[in-house]
Amino acid sequence: MDIRTLNLREQFPQDTANFLILNSANITYFTGFDGAAALLVPKDGENILYVSETNFEQARHEVKNAKVERIIRGEKLFQKICQIVEISVRDRLALDSISVESWKVLTKIVGNEDSLVISGDVIKGLRAVKSSDEIERIRKACMIADVGINTAYEVIEPGVSEQEVMAEVEYAMRKQGSSGAAFDTIVVSGANCAFPHGTHKRQIIKDGDFVVIDLGATVDYYKSDITRTVVAGKISGKQQEIYDTVKIAQDLAVKAISADVRAVDVDAVARAFIGRAGFRDYFVHNLGHGVGLDIHEMPMLSPDSKDTLKEGNVVTVEPGIYITGFGGVRIEDTILVTKNGAEKLTNSAYTLQAN
Amino acid sequence: MDIRTLNLREQFPQDTANFLILNSANITYFTGFDGAAALLVPKDGENILYVSETNFEQARHEVKNAKVERIIRGEKLFQKICQIVEISVRDRLALDSISVESWKVLTKIVGNEDSLVISGDVIKGLRAVKSSDEIERIRKACMIADVGINTAYEVIEPGVSEQEVMAEVEYAMRKQGSSGAAFDTIVVSGANCAFPHGTHKRQIIKDGDFVVIDLGATVDYYKSDITRTVVAGKISGKQQEIYDTVKIAQDLAVKAISADVRAVDVDAVARAFIGRAGFRDYFVHNLGHGVGLDIHEMPMLSPDSKDTLKEGNVVTVEPGIYITGFGGVRIEDTILVTKNGAEKLTNSAYTLQAN
Repeated sequence: MDIRTLNLREQFPQDTANFLILNSANITYFTGFDGAAALLVPKDGENILYVSETNFEQARHEVKNAKVERIIRGEKLFQKICQIVEISVRDRLALDSISVESWKVLTKIVGNEDSLVISGDVIKGLRAVKSSDEIERIRKACMIADVGINTAYEVIEPGVSEQEVMAEVEYAMRKQGSSGAAFDTIVVSGANCAFPHGTHKRQIIKDGDFVVIDLGATVDYYKSDITRTVVAGKISGKQQEIYDTVKIAQDLAVKAISADVRAVDVDAVARAFIGRAGFRDYFVHNLGHGVGLDIHEMPMLSPDSKDTLKEGNVVTVEPGIYITGFGGVRIEDTILVTKNGAEKLTNSAYTLQAN
Repeated sequence: MDIRTLNLREQFPQDTANFLILNSANITYFTGFDGAAALLVPKDGENILYVSETNFEQARHEVKNAKVERIIRGEKLFQKICQIVEISVRDRLALDSISVESWKVLTKIVGNEDSLVISGDVIKGLRAVKSSDEIERIRKACMIADVGINTAYEVIEPGVSEQEVMAEVEYAMRKQGSSGAAFDTIVVSGANCAFPHGTHKRQIIKDGDFVVIDLGATVDYYKSDITRTVVAGKISGKQQEIYDTVKIAQDLAVKAISADVRAVDVDAVARAFIGRAGFRDYFVHNLGHGVGLDIHEMPMLSPDSKDTLKEGNVVTVEPGIYITGFGGVRIEDTILVTKNGAEKLTNSAYTLQAN
């Protein structure tokens, strides 16, 4: 029996006999497979992976730690599951996530709502603490992301388009073994750097423009996340001031990280420094988030986070300052929380000057 | 007032005063913006787009057809909405999609379930019929996908890795203006071609291998989808037989397409031909699906589809034959349904011989 299933079983909610996992990343976490419809984890006995005809042969070929069950056209997943497991108020079915439409279908089959329980946070909590195997994959994805950033450093100069930089960085990461961008690559320049998530308008980089590059790679489903900000051409005093502020805020936050530290306190370190520098209203997002199978997962580093950092968490630390009409700076690394501190998994140079 | 909002208002479910849109692609459909949390469409008056602080300035800058409202940290979206609109059994709030957790929160605020109604299919139906503007974007995305396929034709030969082909086709599409892969690019070779969705194992293409290339581009959020299958090196008789069968099945299905034809009948044309050729159990998926802002949307071309094709639908036609241990063939194009027939938007050559 694999350790992840054992861990989940130990955390089953009270009176729960079976756990039905519907979220795709959660299914991948337990099976290493990403083309299934559902995974049933019973209190005892073998897990059952439900797969459509399309992906059935592949699942049978690749999945070793679950019984693979085919969903034939016309068969209803919930009916199939309810035929093989007892669901009652004393033997409830836990679920990780479900749409209200599916919930209503399932409730009708089961007969009442009290036999069902939503317990998505249990799996989110398990996934937040990475095994050495998962850390190795993220580490590789981070090394590839560094290649992406170095490629951006090489190609960014006035006259080059944001689109061209995206093409080159994604190509470089693919050549290093990435199985695709971890999220929509952001390369944004000039005043549009004030928009943290960039824009789908594609511009030509001009002399003196800020350029924000935010990218990630994927290795065996595990992701990385890094941001650097440079200026193409001449750097102004205000650009340097903003950059230095964000850089120091990041340094201070990374230094504050360690197992058993509250995430809210790490966020506060960066936010307070940026506030003291006069940019309180210009840091418009959270300090960071967990990274793994999903690009945003637990724990959250934010002013309202309830999370405490644990050894084996992998998180981003990404303070930013965004000034409408002027531009913005974000500096981000993917970081492993260790017993007594933090280890940076992304290691690209910090430089405000492009080329 | 924009035409899409007017169309939605005309289709409001009975006794419904407001429509709350939570699905990200649906929000993009109405606003052209992809970073919002929710869009409120009232029966009269201006639409309201709810955006977190992170993306607020960008939304204010880019969204012209809705009032942009900031969600400040700590504010609850549903409470905010319920403060400005009346929700009752006589003036219900319709929703496109929602998780059961959010549904329960909303039900508590509203006071009862009967004041809420899930009506996702209304918007799915609107999105299925593309405007000329949407067709132009998809057409561009299809032209770029053709460049991807032609690049694959150039680079595929024995000794080249699947990963390398992925790198080259995605790079070529980016250089042509794609804003990223429409979905995870599939390049799969040899016996693994029996898996319709490929595999994350990266292999070296060998002499005599089938190679399936399934890719798409994105232009202004709109996607394209194309598949070609080739053999690297010497083609066997069985490979040729399977390829010819799939190709004829696709031709017949495309010829069967027209406005007012039932989707199930188009699927049946391809499925019957493949069946008569002796491969009935080896075509393990639907014939096709709508394409637009999402890579899978309405209408569905499948044996259990309830959809009737309409002028302006954009669908894939993608029959396949998959033989475990041997390999597989899929041929797919993105196709516009016209009044009296079909227009292929992807136009890559059909060739079984690589190079």
